Amino acid sequence: MLQIFILYSLLQPLHWKRLKASLIFELQEVAGHKAGKGKLGPLVDDSGCFYKPYQCDDRGSKEVAFYTSFSSNTKIPDHIRRFFPVFYGTKLVEASDGSGLSPHIVLQDLVSNRNNPSIMDIKIGARTWYPQASDDYIERCFQKDRETTTSLLGFRISGLQIYENKESGFWKPVKKLVQAFNVEDVRLVLRKFVSSNSPTDSNSVPDCSFAPSVYGGSSGILAQLLELKEWFEVQTIYNLNSCSVLMVYEKESLLKGTSPGAEIKLVDFAHVIEGTGIIDHNFLGGLCSLIKIISEILTGPDEHTNKACLQDMEKNSVIDNGTNK
Amino acid sequence: MLQIFILYSLLQPLHWKRLKASLIFELQEVAGHKAGKGKLGPLVDDSGCFYKPYQCDDRGSKEVAFYTSFSSNTKIPDHIRRFFPVFYGTKLVEASDGSGLSPHIVLQDLVSNRNNPSIMDIKIGARTWYPQASDDYIERCFQKDRETTTSLLGFRISGLQIYENKESGFWKPVKKLVQAFNVEDVRLVLRKFVSSNSPTDSNSVPDCSFAPSVYGGSSGILAQLLELKEWFEVQTIYNLNSCSVLMVYEKESLLKGTSPGAEIKLVDFAHVIEGTGIIDHNFLGGLCSLIKIISEILTGPDEHTNKACLQDMEKNSVIDNGTNK
Repeated sequence: MLQIFILYSLLQPLHWKRLKASLIFELQEVAGHKAGKGKLGPLVDDSGCFYKPYQCDDRGSKEVAFYTSFSSNTKIPDHIRRFFPVFYGTKLVEASDGSGLSPHIVLQDLVSNRNNPSIMDIKIGARTWYPQASDDYIERCFQKDRETTTSLLGFRISGLQIYENKESGFWKPVKKLVQAFNVEDVRLVLRKFVSSNSPTDSNSVPDCSFAPSVYGGSSGILAQLLELKEWFEVQTIYNLNSCSVLMVYEKESLLKGTSPGAEIKLVDFAHVIEGTGIIDHNFLGGLCSLIKIISEILTGPDEHTNKACLQDMEKNSVIDNGTNK
Repeated sequence: MLQIFILYSLLQPLHWKRLKASLIFELQEVAGHKAGKGKLGPLVDDSGCFYKPYQCDDRGSKEVAFYTSFSSNTKIPDHIRRFFPVFYGTKLVEASDGSGLSPHIVLQDLVSNRNNPSIMDIKIGARTWYPQASDDYIERCFQKDRETTTSLLGFRISGLQIYENKESGFWKPVKKLVQAFNVEDVRLVLRKFVSSNSPTDSNSVPDCSFAPSVYGGSSGILAQLLELKEWFEVQTIYNLNSCSVLMVYEKESLLKGTSPGAEIKLVDFAHVIEGTGIIDHNFLGGLCSLIKIISEILTGPDEHTNKACLQDMEKNSVIDNGTNK
């Protein structure tokens, strides 16, 4: 494998410049890809490329296979393709820890043109395993899915950074805290993400004042998620297991009165499998759950209906824990 | 509990007639509710009522709680309510095995006005368990979901009867066979369900000649499933765990040139829980998977796209069994 990479690398023009651990490195930390404990970190260059260390287990080859297939597939509509990072191939570059040349997947740097972006990484699906995986892998995913909001909500937040201001910088909760989010935390964080008041101030209710500009509108995040949903209702080519939706925007642009550049991107394709003619109902269901919650931030939930119904249910029922079946 | 039922029963006018094990009994057999092994069977009367034995574990109370809540909920749109059986309360009636008075849930007899209906019972969802259930229950469901098409396809066929003609009567595969259906069997059976050639003739390809009349059209099964889907995208009141969609139509009417009376009904609410503001992403995902497959029977799949993409994937990939993560 290394030989292939060296050959590939030699064939590439050496046009790229100083590599630096920059903003995108922060993004990857958000997404749980932080370098450390013997793991290499991702890198970026000045020309808008992102270098993701090639994982030498199955994951690297799976991800390259996906990107190769996806980028050459002429049947992917352009309005869907824009939600995926551009793929530039693979390359041997000096690793982030200085240990020498190491294979990397070369992708579009999603935030190279951004100033202080707020970013949320949302792993979509009520399960992160898939039936074709090994029992051991399924067992591990199954446990984690039940410990997080994945099973209940159909998705979980994997990481986030919310830009506050020049003085405070970003609110970026540690991984352990993010992993412990329950359903109410997730709802709250999705509101904090688009609020002008400080995300760390537990005494103030998030005002959601940026929601119309970031989530709403004809080109906002909700509109993009709905476009994606429409595609997932029919596409049977890929099952995007353990894949994330990134939501990105810039608060500073918004405060200046220019477009916040709200957009979604799909990332992490190390567990993609063929759809074999079946839609990705797991991704689709989770995506619809996210869409519903974001819609409610924009329009408010139908509290009355739900509350009346639930009270009615409670009068007539106890929680079924399935012990008697 | 029995006392409540005796009281309830005495208060009801005793207007109903001879109970008989009739067509609906067959339907329940289809749906896996056959009497036997100490289990009571359902009953019907001549006035269009269906008597489902009240399960004295949690399931009976859960199902009654659901029907009570649902039938009094004025926020359920009429075009959705029609997909659910009408609920008439509970009643003590002579059990199917002649063992004396026993509590029953009284529902609309869904096929009382049908002649030789073809029926399919499809349990919707990529999981039949739910996070709030006991570990033991989850484990049992989880295993069965992986053994059947539930995990892969987002639904499984629980039972079916397809009417052939006066001579042959119904094709009604035994439960063991139905439980062993793989994804290709499910696709095939969904085609056989709307074909004029014999479902038992393994040499002939199902002609799907009834598909336009049964699945298609503005009031056909696909249109009804799409209405249901639209509701599931927004309703957060109920999570319909382990619930089935019944598809029903009459071949004889169709051959006579009259309407086949194609309709869907939702049944089995013993594991319904409150939605607590979260959509039923599990039901929705499975429903979308069924919708896609039925759409393809009507319009044909985009074979070219899928095949080209898959060949491309295969060239670049091996099956990921997750062993290396």
